[in-house]
Amino acid sequence: MLYFSCDYAEGCHPKVLEAISKTNMISTPGYGMDEFCESAKDKIRKYINCPQADIYFLVGGTQTNQVVIDSMLSNYDGVVAAATGHVAVHEAGAIEYSGHKVITIPAHKGKIDSVELSQMLKDHYDDESAEHMVNPGMVYISYPTEYGTLYSREELEGISSVCKDYGIPLFIDGARLAYGLAAQDDISMADLAKFADVFYIGGTKVGALFGEAVVFTKNNTPKHMITQIKQHGALLAKGRLLGVQFDALFTDDLYLEMGKNALECAAVIRSALVEKGYSLFMENPTNQIFVVMENDMLESFGTQVSYGFWEKYDDKHTVIRIATSWATKKDDVDELIKIL
Amino acid sequence: MLYFSCDYAEGCHPKVLEAISKTNMISTPGYGMDEFCESAKDKIRKYINCPQADIYFLVGGTQTNQVVIDSMLSNYDGVVAAATGHVAVHEAGAIEYSGHKVITIPAHKGKIDSVELSQMLKDHYDDESAEHMVNPGMVYISYPTEYGTLYSREELEGISSVCKDYGIPLFIDGARLAYGLAAQDDISMADLAKFADVFYIGGTKVGALFGEAVVFTKNNTPKHMITQIKQHGALLAKGRLLGVQFDALFTDDLYLEMGKNALECAAVIRSALVEKGYSLFMENPTNQIFVVMENDMLESFGTQVSYGFWEKYDDKHTVIRIATSWATKKDDVDELIKIL
Amino acid sequence: MLYFSCDYAEGCHPKVLEAISKTNMISTPGYGMDEFCESAKDKIRKYINCPQADIYFLVGGTQTNQVVIDSMLSNYDGVVAAATGHVAVHEAGAIEYSGHKVITIPAHKGKIDSVELSQMLKDHYDDESAEHMVNPGMVYISYPTEYGTLYSREELEGISSVCKDYGIPLFIDGARLAYGLAAQDDISMADLAKFADVFYIGGTKVGALFGEAVVFTKNNTPKHMITQIKQHGALLAKGRLLGVQFDALFTDDLYLEMGKNALECAAVIRSALVEKGYSLFMENPTNQIFVVMENDMLESFGTQVSYGFWEKYDDKHTVIRIATSWATKKDDVDELIKIL
Amino acid sequence: MLYFSCDYAEGCHPKVLEAISKTNMISTPGYGMDEFCESAKDKIRKYINCPQADIYFLVGGTQTNQVVIDSMLSNYDGVVAAATGHVAVHEAGAIEYSGHKVITIPAHKGKIDSVELSQMLKDHYDDESAEHMVNPGMVYISYPTEYGTLYSREELEGISSVCKDYGIPLFIDGARLAYGLAAQDDISMADLAKFADVFYIGGTKVGALFGEAVVFTKNNTPKHMITQIKQHGALLAKGRLLGVQFDALFTDDLYLEMGKNALECAAVIRSALVEKGYSLFMENPTNQIFVVMENDMLESFGTQVSYGFWEKYDDKHTVIRIATSWATKKDDVDELIKIL
Repeated sequence: MLYFSCDYAEGCHPKVLEAISKTNMISTPGYGMDEFCESAKDKIRKYINCPQADIYFLVGGTQTNQVVIDSMLSNYDGVVAAATGHVAVHEAGAIEYSGHKVITIPAHKGKIDSVELSQMLKDHYDDESAEHMVNPGMVYISYPTEYGTLYSREELEGISSVCKDYGIPLFIDGARLAYGLAAQDDISMADLAKFADVFYIGGTKVGALFGEAVVFTKNNTPKHMITQIKQHGALLAKGRLLGVQFDALFTDDLYLEMGKNALECAAVIRSALVEKGYSLFMENPTNQIFVVMENDMLESFGTQVSYGFWEKYDDKHTVIRIATSWATKKDDVDELIKIL
Repeated sequence: MLYFSCDYAEGCHPKVLEAISKTNMISTPGYGMDEFCESAKDKIRKYINCPQADIYFLVGGTQTNQVVIDSMLSNYDGVVAAATGHVAVHEAGAIEYSGHKVITIPAHKGKIDSVELSQMLKDHYDDESAEHMVNPGMVYISYPTEYGTLYSREELEGISSVCKDYGIPLFIDGARLAYGLAAQDDISMADLAKFADVFYIGGTKVGALFGEAVVFTKNNTPKHMITQIKQHGALLAKGRLLGVQFDALFTDDLYLEMGKNALECAAVIRSALVEKGYSLFMENPTNQIFVVMENDMLESFGTQVSYGFWEKYDDKHTVIRIATSWATKKDDVDELIKIL
Repeated sequence: MLYFSCDYAEGCHPKVLEAISKTNMISTPGYGMDEFCESAKDKIRKYINCPQADIYFLVGGTQTNQVVIDSMLSNYDGVVAAATGHVAVHEAGAIEYSGHKVITIPAHKGKIDSVELSQMLKDHYDDESAEHMVNPGMVYISYPTEYGTLYSREELEGISSVCKDYGIPLFIDGARLAYGLAAQDDISMADLAKFADVFYIGGTKVGALFGEAVVFTKNNTPKHMITQIKQHGALLAKGRLLGVQFDALFTDDLYLEMGKNALECAAVIRSALVEKGYSLFMENPTNQIFVVMENDMLESFGTQVSYGFWEKYDDKHTVIRIATSWATKKDDVDELIKIL
Repeated sequence: MLYFSCDYAEGCHPKVLEAISKTNMISTPGYGMDEFCESAKDKIRKYINCPQADIYFLVGGTQTNQVVIDSMLSNYDGVVAAATGHVAVHEAGAIEYSGHKVITIPAHKGKIDSVELSQMLKDHYDDESAEHMVNPGMVYISYPTEYGTLYSREELEGISSVCKDYGIPLFIDGARLAYGLAAQDDISMADLAKFADVFYIGGTKVGALFGEAVVFTKNNTPKHMITQIKQHGALLAKGRLLGVQFDALFTDDLYLEMGKNALECAAVIRSALVEKGYSLFMENPTNQIFVVMENDMLESFGTQVSYGFWEKYDDKHTVIRIATSWATKKDDVDELIKIL
């Protein structure tokens, strides 16, 4: 069986595993107060050219979104997101569970539009009933989006600028950050650190066993952050594991290298699909390929390839997801293309 | 100044005030454990022909929606509502505050469509990621809607039937119930008690100082309901006040009579508006009139009439709301028409 | 049946009812944006000699405690209270429902001790695990306490001073404020406004149909307070009712006068009890009398007098509460004494 | 530096690391829907002789307590715990954050007493104000307790029996379960599965990198458990890591073996301490040693040994914790004794 269903089907990159193994029996303080976490934070700060960055390591994506959003918002605030945003759709209500509304605005191939965002905020504050409505207290975008698409530099600048105008923080969800950065030459992680008030660097989907690095970029860490993380059940006892992993990810450009592997594999698959006459559902330059398949064909295809079901296309077709990752082997790509 | 901005601008109907005054110095137990509440509940049970109805009196609309939804849902549930529904827009996030997502579906003149509802529920349960999403645990509709429109008997049957098919309760928000019932001959409050698993009879906007009567119609009261009400800060110490008022509202058909007064006044105003060439924004048969006005005219109009701002129509026009109520006097209607 | 079970068994003081009746058909804006609320706020500001006081009217006590505590605390904060405090025991978990722990410290006749409070706060911040614990973010006391006892001026100064030292607000629950102020010559409401960062003036138990006036005394109102009140389901549509009532309560010293009536009646009953050989459970100078009664006697007593059950004393005795109020009539007191 | 500060200072047992390494590049479905999780669950079910056990793997202790308690309780419920219980003190308010009160009862060397528990429950339901109070909806105990003490078989039977009488579930927190079971011959994990309605098997403190196995023993899994776990941000994408680790822990009795190592080391240290004249603060038979040390001595001691600060004893003494674990080496124990 070939595995192309998602980008979290394997354990971790061998170099990450090596780091975990090598440090396994070293004794350290708990809860991230160890030297490995310090080292990883230093490397990230340098990598993003943001010496004041305050960094916290968490375990998973939904957890990270919940902790960041809840700790940065006040009671009366909600978070603005694309209607297709992960926080709006696929987090089992984790944001609402923490008491905050996800205020959705239209998604355009997974992205929000800065002009529409600006208009929405203006309309809110112009509304005589504004005090009877949830206050828009943060803007959430994902990079890449849930559909693998990417904001251009200009689009990011636009959204960041609207946020500044209204004095609300911009939060960038980077669960698949490496796959975005590897696709776009003119945007670096340091740029994102400038655009965003807080963002996270995804590890779970990019070569770590688990782990996301939250970066507060503007001396804007919420108070008592450790207490807030613990309160959400998100404080890892052996926090050093997160430090060890991110330290490895940010050694010798490993993080970006892994992104490149996924994108090279995805490009090969995309070409083959087009060549063979398949139609792509939503084109994007990153590691997720959304392709329209005939239902008749899917049954036998599914016995050879593990793919991701995405959505019904019409009565005879289905949109499926083929995802590559840091772990995708060129041999498996060749094998997949033979089957297609 | 003529007051047409809303239907809660005055105190209460004289008969309600008389009941409060007459019983004022009588001593009773607190928290609704008194004879007046019992009497009011009996009258409502008879009026809706539902002997098993379990009734609780609360103070206001948002509070009622929060308590009913939160007490009937489990942690993992959200409530399905029209995108324009009061719980989705104008309750300051009271539902999310209690931990539940408001799952919006398209509104058609304020109403949801039973076919779309059914499709949405089917899609949810067919989705392989359903367990990663909020479970649709209740359907919320308002009657009349926030735009004054009404579901037909057939539409209510359709929605009620979908809810039964999926085993989820239907909650009808009747903040302006009298104004809906007075407009529709073929739907009685007893019918609503059949369609709904829980509904509330609005008092605040229909002649009471305050108060909404929540009716559980299917032997389906959440456990420890008093504790849950108290936990939401919604248990009135002098609960007898709610009993006294609803007892008066359900004596000699007063509730429905008040609805009729509002509708008669609204009909006169609507005719005048049409006659004078105004265009109605969203036609409806109840007590709220949404009319498109020239901005130039609004300024002077506003010095004579207190109206409700609704929304911007275009650069030169605004949608305003003119609301009648149990308290609207025919003389004021005549006066208003002169000004128009 | 004589009613001595609580201080909220009747409607409202005749002067309050008169004010409600007189203003009943006047049209006003909703949600407390009316002239009556403004007038009441002005009178309170003058009465407490605190021109900067920011005042909000809410409906009931548990609601008020929930809204004040939740709006003033951050996520990571809890509220410190006596183990017997209303928020700790008798609010059905309304504080925890809003996400905050009630951190209890020992109660001495219902009161907390400033030295113990100071020690507890010191211990918390000295604890190396402080970040793994709930942060003490506010101190809550009730005046009078749940046992009718009163803090002395010196005790209030002590607690207020500890709060200032640690930079956390002091919240005084004044559900029965009039009954405390009437008992203590050397403490005025203006003094409480100085000691407290926020306090509330109870109306429900002192002559109003319902209503509590929250006073922020130090230019410290939480942001978007109206939104937060609405979010808790606590924003009254006809907010004018609260303004009308508090305006009446603060006209011609009515509020304090009602306190005096209750205390005079209580004093007479206390003397009679002592004379007749009953033993008082917890002595206090306010309107609640806790007396130890033989179970054998209670049965017949209960057929003539409605009293409050407090707690089991021993196998043969029970502690009951006899409460007087603004509404207690001297004739009923005489009648009660005959029965004792 | 010798590390005796806690039982989570190292990574994982070499056999666990080997299992992680060996399976690292195998592709599996996410979220715990993999063969390793299935295998681990099977082994646990057999080990506890409970074929109907329904098992979920979570990441950490506070998270597990939050998810279990919140998913099993209704809105109106609180959880009963010892005043010294982890959920009451050291979880940063994670339980209250989820809306539930921790109802504390006295702790006796970290344990609750079944007679006191029974009396408390009886008093609650006898109280006429019960509906105004938080309902006791679950009993939480830890085994071993936070002070390393253990309930006897008889004590567990007593508590379990009280819970059955009142129809509320018993939850046993087994964060350090191996260290308890290794100390007590007459209690097996199978026994705990009988006494408890739900319990968890701690991995983080017993040889895993992280992970706790929640076991529902009475066909009593909360509905939509995966959704609820996700909603709390607690669903691990690469759930297989938890399966792989628990599979290793439950192979060849590794879990219990690790407990024995810790206890042997602790016994040697305890003897040495007593021999050298130190006084133990609270004696217990498990892996945590609480010893009273002179402050003067602590300074130099701290330069050689990492210990856990517990609490101030008196002005000249401090209680410290020396913890052994699966990872403690006999050489380090000898070294420690030399220093003492």
